[in-house]
Amino acid sequence: MNIADLPGVTDVAVARERIRDLVHLTPVLTGRSLDAETGAKLWFKCEHLQRTGSFKFRGASHAVSLLPGDCRGVATHSSGNHGAALACAAAARRITALVVMPENSVAAKVKAVRAYGGIVHFCRPDQAARESGLARMIQQGMEAVPPYDDNRIIAGQGSCALEILEQVDGLDIIVAPVGGGGLLAGTALAAAGRGQPVRVIGAEPAGANDTIRSLVAGKRVEEHHPDTIADGLRALIGVRNFAVISRYVEQVLPVSDETIVYAMKLIWSRLKQVVEPSGAVSLAAVISHPEVFRDKRVCVILSGGNLDLAPGSIP
Amino acid sequence: MNIADLPGVTDVAVARERIRDLVHLTPVLTGRSLDAETGAKLWFKCEHLQRTGSFKFRGASHAVSLLPGDCRGVATHSSGNHGAALACAAAARRITALVVMPENSVAAKVKAVRAYGGIVHFCRPDQAARESGLARMIQQGMEAVPPYDDNRIIAGQGSCALEILEQVDGLDIIVAPVGGGGLLAGTALAAAGRGQPVRVIGAEPAGANDTIRSLVAGKRVEEHHPDTIADGLRALIGVRNFAVISRYVEQVLPVSDETIVYAMKLIWSRLKQVVEPSGAVSLAAVISHPEVFRDKRVCVILSGGNLDLAPGSIP
Repeated sequence: MNIADLPGVTDVAVARERIRDLVHLTPVLTGRSLDAETGAKLWFKCEHLQRTGSFKFRGASHAVSLLPGDCRGVATHSSGNHGAALACAAAARRITALVVMPENSVAAKVKAVRAYGGIVHFCRPDQAARESGLARMIQQGMEAVPPYDDNRIIAGQGSCALEILEQVDGLDIIVAPVGGGGLLAGTALAAAGRGQPVRVIGAEPAGANDTIRSLVAGKRVEEHHPDTIADGLRALIGVRNFAVISRYVEQVLPVSDETIVYAMKLIWSRLKQVVEPSGAVSLAAVISHPEVFRDKRVCVILSGGNLDLAPGSIP
Repeated sequence: MNIADLPGVTDVAVARERIRDLVHLTPVLTGRSLDAETGAKLWFKCEHLQRTGSFKFRGASHAVSLLPGDCRGVATHSSGNHGAALACAAAARRITALVVMPENSVAAKVKAVRAYGGIVHFCRPDQAARESGLARMIQQGMEAVPPYDDNRIIAGQGSCALEILEQVDGLDIIVAPVGGGGLLAGTALAAAGRGQPVRVIGAEPAGANDTIRSLVAGKRVEEHHPDTIADGLRALIGVRNFAVISRYVEQVLPVSDETIVYAMKLIWSRLKQVVEPSGAVSLAAVISHPEVFRDKRVCVILSGGNLDLAPGSIP
């Protein structure tokens, strides 16, 4: 990918101003017992408290804000959080939102898309079916708002890290989860715009480690058979996202599903916050790789909270 | 009670500075759908995210900070949150904490007192048994730190409202729950110290309405047979607390247990926060008395989050 076609540092700053009044300025929490347990000084950026329950609302509302006035509808594919975010952002502009969702999507996420007025089209749970479903809708005249491989989305997601840098002084590291790579790429661009450097580290489920494999291979892999509890991080890393991440992100750390579940429970018991598995992946990375974070000032992004609380749904 | 023996406006400001580095500056959340539902513009002060899970840590840490250096131990009676707060504050100074708890205390609260290193003594679930239990401990040389009827405690609890007044501009009303009256009295003093007046309204379970009856009678009632799901608000209003509240609080509104449970569920579904029944009483008052709050800028204090999540414990 040509660097001129990628989003840059200033795109994130511009996006942030554009969506300032649309998004929540989410709080940052701390917890002494978690610092003691991890050996790091931790801040938790509460994107599970963002509108629609995840950071995805940032990118979606940014993309929707840039649509022409005569746009009649938007379409996307999503395992859930981007779909709900896009439906909510579109509803605010009275635009139709069509969302292609894998058949195995979390029930609460399907319900959320519909609650915000989105129309759900189910597809097989693989990347090809997602993309062909979306292609059909674009043929029908809908404007595509992809979930992550999109400059508007990456720039919008980066607004989260700009808030973090204002909310917490003297950070050494920001940790963001990586699925398709929108949040991690945006975070890296936001941090790169700082005079004083802040390291950005990705956290990826070991069962969906396409980004780590891509970084090792030096090019984006396309073979991908995700098997992880973190349903929000099962997508294949995007082309633009990989290009940004391979330039700006220091490293991406793998975490096991067991550690993700342990991190969810810690976040509940110590911070009284309920996050979805994907939302706990950043803390799971800190727990799994203590040598990277010891004595550092670290902000962990709790990226989403849309957990299905029906009996049997909680790990 | 002589007014000279009561805490005053400046005591709250002094307490706030004294405990500034001990307590969390808790976040304030908003939610558009809750504004639409109530007809008010609402802010939610997250004291359930205070250390030990409730505002009680403010008063307890203030009282402990004022103890002489040779103090060998503290004692109190508490249905739970003050006990845990005192145990935690005492542990930080390496002081023993003895806590008299009613036999019907919530299991999670008993566990919390012990987790912070406190020693629990059970008593019958009535005011006389609580007070005689505490008296015995004082005879044994412990320093009493009562849960609410204490100037140090009232001043410490008021620090919450001082934070609110800095965090939210142009408030019309602050709503605080009332049990023993520490938080409501402290909140009223904090608001009274403002040049621009902010109204303070109490919220009380209808099944533990000793404060409302006392205000109607023009003197503190002593007959009290609490029957409410809000276990943190079953105590009888304190002497000092009533004296402050009757001077400074505009009104106290009753709420039903049904509305408390409804408010808990709204707080979960709209703010993704889990609060205990007592913590939802302020929002329950806004829901029950919409005519008081319509079109007003209102901060609701979510006072605590120590809910027993064992099966069958959640309403």
